[in-house]
Amino acid sequence: MMKPLRIGLLGLGTVGAGTVRVLADNAPELEQRTGRALKVVRAAVRDPHKARDCDLHGVQIDADADALVRDPDVDVVVELMGGTERARELVCAALAAGKPVVTANKALIAECSDAVFAAARASGQAVAFEAAVAGGIPIIKVLREGLAGNRIDEVAGIINGTTNYILTRMSQDGVEFAPALAEAQAKGYAEADPTFDVEGIDAAHKLAILAALAFGVPMRTDWIRTIGLTQVSSADIRYAKELGYRVKHLAIARRGAAGIELRVEPTLVPKNSFVAKIDGVMNGVMLSGNAVGSTGLHGPGAGALATASSVVADLVDIALGRALATPLSADSASAVVPAEVETAFYLRMQVADRPGVMKEISTVLAGLEISIEAIVQREVEAEQDATVVLLTHSVRTGALERAVEALQSLPVVHGPIVRMRVEHLEQ
Amino acid sequence: MMKPLRIGLLGLGTVGAGTVRVLADNAPELEQRTGRALKVVRAAVRDPHKARDCDLHGVQIDADADALVRDPDVDVVVELMGGTERARELVCAALAAGKPVVTANKALIAECSDAVFAAARASGQAVAFEAAVAGGIPIIKVLREGLAGNRIDEVAGIINGTTNYILTRMSQDGVEFAPALAEAQAKGYAEADPTFDVEGIDAAHKLAILAALAFGVPMRTDWIRTIGLTQVSSADIRYAKELGYRVKHLAIARRGAAGIELRVEPTLVPKNSFVAKIDGVMNGVMLSGNAVGSTGLHGPGAGALATASSVVADLVDIALGRALATPLSADSASAVVPAEVETAFYLRMQVADRPGVMKEISTVLAGLEISIEAIVQREVEAEQDATVVLLTHSVRTGALERAVEALQSLPVVHGPIVRMRVEHLEQ
Repeated sequence: MMKPLRIGLLGLGTVGAGTVRVLADNAPELEQRTGRALKVVRAAVRDPHKARDCDLHGVQIDADADALVRDPDVDVVVELMGGTERARELVCAALAAGKPVVTANKALIAECSDAVFAAARASGQAVAFEAAVAGGIPIIKVLREGLAGNRIDEVAGIINGTTNYILTRMSQDGVEFAPALAEAQAKGYAEADPTFDVEGIDAAHKLAILAALAFGVPMRTDWIRTIGLTQVSSADIRYAKELGYRVKHLAIARRGAAGIELRVEPTLVPKNSFVAKIDGVMNGVMLSGNAVGSTGLHGPGAGALATASSVVADLVDIALGRALATPLSADSASAVVPAEVETAFYLRMQVADRPGVMKEISTVLAGLEISIEAIVQREVEAEQDATVVLLTHSVRTGALERAVEALQSLPVVHGPIVRMRVEHLEQ
Repeated sequence: MMKPLRIGLLGLGTVGAGTVRVLADNAPELEQRTGRALKVVRAAVRDPHKARDCDLHGVQIDADADALVRDPDVDVVVELMGGTERARELVCAALAAGKPVVTANKALIAECSDAVFAAARASGQAVAFEAAVAGGIPIIKVLREGLAGNRIDEVAGIINGTTNYILTRMSQDGVEFAPALAEAQAKGYAEADPTFDVEGIDAAHKLAILAALAFGVPMRTDWIRTIGLTQVSSADIRYAKELGYRVKHLAIARRGAAGIELRVEPTLVPKNSFVAKIDGVMNGVMLSGNAVGSTGLHGPGAGALATASSVVADLVDIALGRALATPLSADSASAVVPAEVETAFYLRMQVADRPGVMKEISTVLAGLEISIEAIVQREVEAEQDATVVLLTHSVRTGALERAVEALQSLPVVHGPIVRMRVEHLEQ
């Protein structure tokens, strides 16, 4: 029997307590799998006297995180405190002290990758972050190891449970964004300040991590076209449904001739596609590679125990001495984000309800060589207006921008034109 | 740069040629990921002069498999020849010669695990078999590593593409088993002798492997209740649909109070469940663990390149010196297969079309305390008979056997009673 792996925890919130519970509940299995005990010996928390949802017998608890990361009796540091500045400082100190690090902190990995991975390279220690993306789904391991035989061409999925819950409620029950968000907050699926989730920042952090692993793109969230949910109305969701689509807050990274396309935005996907069927707080990610074709994973994207499942998987790899080294440095050849791409679009506009309107719209689109896949026109009750919804065939984004501008300037078009991308995913 | 990993291939059929192609196509990525070249240096085939679907420039090809596994210029042996006797002999010889082995051979792993893993333990070398189960889906890695933090409670899925293709055709297009099988054969999805697939033997091999990894159950296919597809009619599929179910050839291993239940059989699953949506030749597996809850993977279960994707992933682990050691020895405590379990059932019977029949059937079931969830009665055109289809609530299998016997002996019941299990899967 090898000596125990002694774990130091930074933070004992939901995921921290979940990690302590999973390590305790599955101690026999973990010992059998690794040949050693996985033992939490120390934790640093803001308030050492606060009650925690786990058994902390035998664990030294205090507020001294700096001492923990340097403690010679701690073999590995698990960072579950969140935030970036202080977390970066402590993670880098732990690495400098020769300790591998496990973290669930997507903001830290996505925003401080240079500092964190430089420290990891300097120390020769691993930084493992399975729990940072898609909670309990082992997407990092599948991408880096399970599909290591592939050139990855596309990563697409639902990687934020909060926005997916809101869209699912809007789609299945016809509620609007604001009450659906309020409900998600009441259920604990959304924070009191929901900006990170609703504006797509959380999903962009995760997509930056996936894209870095898949394509060698530097982890830069500012390269990701990020659009939040606030513009999506239940009317758009209803029209999308009529046309055979679902609206999802899709994160997608795709290799194209011109470079790597990176986006998080409300997107129409065919109702029978894999991501269309990921409902509620679930996460689901599709990976395409040149050998495997296309494969998908789904499961819980959050939750104390599900996230702890990924934290503990990383600890098992470390206990076995087989955690992968830091991500490869950027492959500059593929680190190009194209300014323009080809994609299909959904457009919705309010128009004057009179003859000739359709012809005016069609003339604008035909002039820019944009062809139409489907069109729906509806009278708006108790108004003089009608609603026109249309799906374009694949078109260059620049041409679409010009078309929207031209349509917007038509006198028969009233109010702003709503637009969303349409993705015909492989599965 | 480390020295190349020199690969010897046993067999150059579809998957062998696919492996050579993937190694060549993705050579730059593989070298970046492992820090070394992955190079096929030798192959042993029955007919060295046969044309192959890949570039074999620089590869020594002959028929001498025994020499290959002992060749000091081969670092790792990839067994893609199939069959058990000769494959076992060569794999054990390769291990004895100090070489790790990668194999896609589910029959070898499931049927010869004692010999193969004893040889692996003796030599301290790894036997990697990601490609043996579910083709391109990295299910072995997810089960052993990605979910290593969990006590696994259930593994359930579609792990044979041939039978799933047949059932999908029967379900979507109403064709019967025999023409659907003929079509699968014409498309190359089924062998000329389809027994292995259609009788569930192939799926049982794969389930034995998954169950051994999940539960420490010995790899014994004779512990698996295995029922083929030949009894399934399009009528059953139609009735199942009416009741909100799909018929799938479900492989399932489940931890229960009495032990580990292991089955491969035609099963009704709710139409909205994950496995119900796995169509055609796709594979899909759901894993439940006490930390993660429930997570699923889907993707191509066969095909030259998809299977090669898994072979190459194993080679990458070996190139990095991080392939996992052999599966743990059997955990005898959990290696119990219960004789009786509780489950719901689908029954279909032909009955005399006259008053009182339903009462007779209900009386038999009530007497054995079997309660009914749903019942459908249909007249059979141009006959004096009617068809009765019913779903039971959960019942002990012994009680169901007695009920079927009693019903079968009723004079109003004509012909054999068809029965299938119903699984209300978690997702």
